[in-house]
Amino acid sequence: MSIRETDIPALARGCAVLGTGGGGGVRAGSLAAARAVGEHGPVPLVRLAELSPDALVLPLSGIGAPTVSHEMIHSEDEPKRVAEEVERLFGRPPAAVMSSEIGGSNGVQPVAWAAWLGLPLLDADGMGRAFPEVQMVSMHVAGLPADLVIMSDVAGNVVTIRPVDGLWSERLARAVCVAAGSSALMADYVVTAERARGAVIEGTVTRALEIGRATEGAADPLAALAAELGAVRLITGKLTDVARRTTGGFVRGTATIEGTGDDRGRTLVLELQNENLVAVEDNQVRAMVPDLISVVDTETAAAVQTEDLRYGQRVTVLAWPCDPLWRTGKGLDTAGPRAFGYDLDYVPVEELAHG
Amino acid sequence: MSIRETDIPALARGCAVLGTGGGGGVRAGSLAAARAVGEHGPVPLVRLAELSPDALVLPLSGIGAPTVSHEMIHSEDEPKRVAEEVERLFGRPPAAVMSSEIGGSNGVQPVAWAAWLGLPLLDADGMGRAFPEVQMVSMHVAGLPADLVIMSDVAGNVVTIRPVDGLWSERLARAVCVAAGSSALMADYVVTAERARGAVIEGTVTRALEIGRATEGAADPLAALAAELGAVRLITGKLTDVARRTTGGFVRGTATIEGTGDDRGRTLVLELQNENLVAVEDNQVRAMVPDLISVVDTETAAAVQTEDLRYGQRVTVLAWPCDPLWRTGKGLDTAGPRAFGYDLDYVPVEELAHG
Repeated sequence: MSIRETDIPALARGCAVLGTGGGGGVRAGSLAAARAVGEHGPVPLVRLAELSPDALVLPLSGIGAPTVSHEMIHSEDEPKRVAEEVERLFGRPPAAVMSSEIGGSNGVQPVAWAAWLGLPLLDADGMGRAFPEVQMVSMHVAGLPADLVIMSDVAGNVVTIRPVDGLWSERLARAVCVAAGSSALMADYVVTAERARGAVIEGTVTRALEIGRATEGAADPLAALAAELGAVRLITGKLTDVARRTTGGFVRGTATIEGTGDDRGRTLVLELQNENLVAVEDNQVRAMVPDLISVVDTETAAAVQTEDLRYGQRVTVLAWPCDPLWRTGKGLDTAGPRAFGYDLDYVPVEELAHG
Repeated sequence: MSIRETDIPALARGCAVLGTGGGGGVRAGSLAAARAVGEHGPVPLVRLAELSPDALVLPLSGIGAPTVSHEMIHSEDEPKRVAEEVERLFGRPPAAVMSSEIGGSNGVQPVAWAAWLGLPLLDADGMGRAFPEVQMVSMHVAGLPADLVIMSDVAGNVVTIRPVDGLWSERLARAVCVAAGSSALMADYVVTAERARGAVIEGTVTRALEIGRATEGAADPLAALAAELGAVRLITGKLTDVARRTTGGFVRGTATIEGTGDDRGRTLVLELQNENLVAVEDNQVRAMVPDLISVVDTETAAAVQTEDLRYGQRVTVLAWPCDPLWRTGKGLDTAGPRAFGYDLDYVPVEELAHG
């Protein structure tokens, strides 16, 4: 199967939902993807099993703060410079592009990057959602070494990092990103298809497409989306307070939703760090990272990104289980609540929400 | 000729004088150099003409804030990781180490780096003094592209930057340096001996040795040093005020010297940015970058580094002409007073000091 221009809106909607508020710039990313596919033709979507064992998979993502990346569209040059560096270092070009992060614009833009490079897109990613830090990927949880990061920025600089571990990878990549104007294209965990097996989350591009299509023409888009996701509805209400600040390449803050209708009298507070990380009601946690928490428009069920949260918006907060990989010990060490500085023991959303 | 363990103290003294207050950690650097030469034997000092045209010259420097690098001694691993990366990228190992910056610890430590790598040291550097920013090198003034920077830090990370220009090189390298704990070993302008000709300042290791030896056994060390340098004495007095702060990998501040003896009643203020950049008396500039301004102990003529400036010290400030390269249009654009944010037209120290 291939991704055609007409698939982009559904893909973008699905990626926005999986972005859990982060990833940023989905609209800009989907415009770039649609234009690239329009110019270069449909992008083949391939499964890992279809690649030869030694084929190089090129995981790509844009890193930066959403409120910045929103306005910084990557050009054709950036993936080309990254691919050239891969060929220089590995002695052969990459065989397929992979989204490092299916949530947000990083799920949509790889369609453009693959189109520009003339490569297929792998039906997989490294998160099954969005996360704010570069070591928060399935490849890290699977034990692949974070021994090479290649970055390219809009000015044309290329930076190659050989970090001693994933935390240094994050620290150095983030410093380069901030110095480059808080936006850069990044490749990490460049691996053969053989090594990618079991270390990437397969089927997530298809999944994002399904999520995006679930609300198309639905009489009750919110119910259709919740059913497709297997999500619990945490609250329906309106945004009464949004506090955000951008610092060190991150957006941090809180969003407060006061219930309306059946939820009148209830208040839910979301803790944000690029993504929605923790949902709290009456000092009780109702959902927490790595489970997914998305704010959607109550009427259309379209995801609302962190950058677009506005006072008075009528929204519903949905929460649903993450990929089982994130619930393992190493998964929680990597991207559980404590990895974000919350002194919370992880409890699955299924237990919290119905508790 | 070779650099022996017994040459290190004179080399260190000369490099400290050429450091114009910056470069930092000369004592620590000279201990490392003496130990390395003691273990690995004398380091051959070679002239550019002795290298084959395609031999790779590896310019190395430590970057960081002096007050930090003072306490961070580079290990054998860092130059080895940089040399390995050079071999990976160029297909052959470097043939000689060069100091990027003869002033301060970066003039002494290359003896250790060369000893550890089993390579000769080139009798040349990229500044003829010390400068705080990585694009402030003769290779940049000569028009060589700053197209590759390799950095290694104490944690073991290796970062390779392919910047679009020297300013991006500085910006990205500095960001990596700060992220790595404000200290890293850096190689830039890795070039063949053929391309290095006319783009490096030759003879500066020998020059530092001569400066260091000028005061040895001299009845009047200060007079001997000033004569060797061809320097003017700006003031002799005591330090009455030192204001420094370390920010973003730099030390910035001012030092005030009140005259004593024949200079009683006069006051000289030095503007610092790692190095001593501008000397002002009664609102008149008496010397300015790129000319060299060094604070030395009035009795011993030993250079006083920015990090060691202390209230009440008895010091003399010397100033002398920079390499002619820095007085060209591109030289002044790169490292003249305006490159440091001073709204001053450059006037050579010979004209100012006697004016």
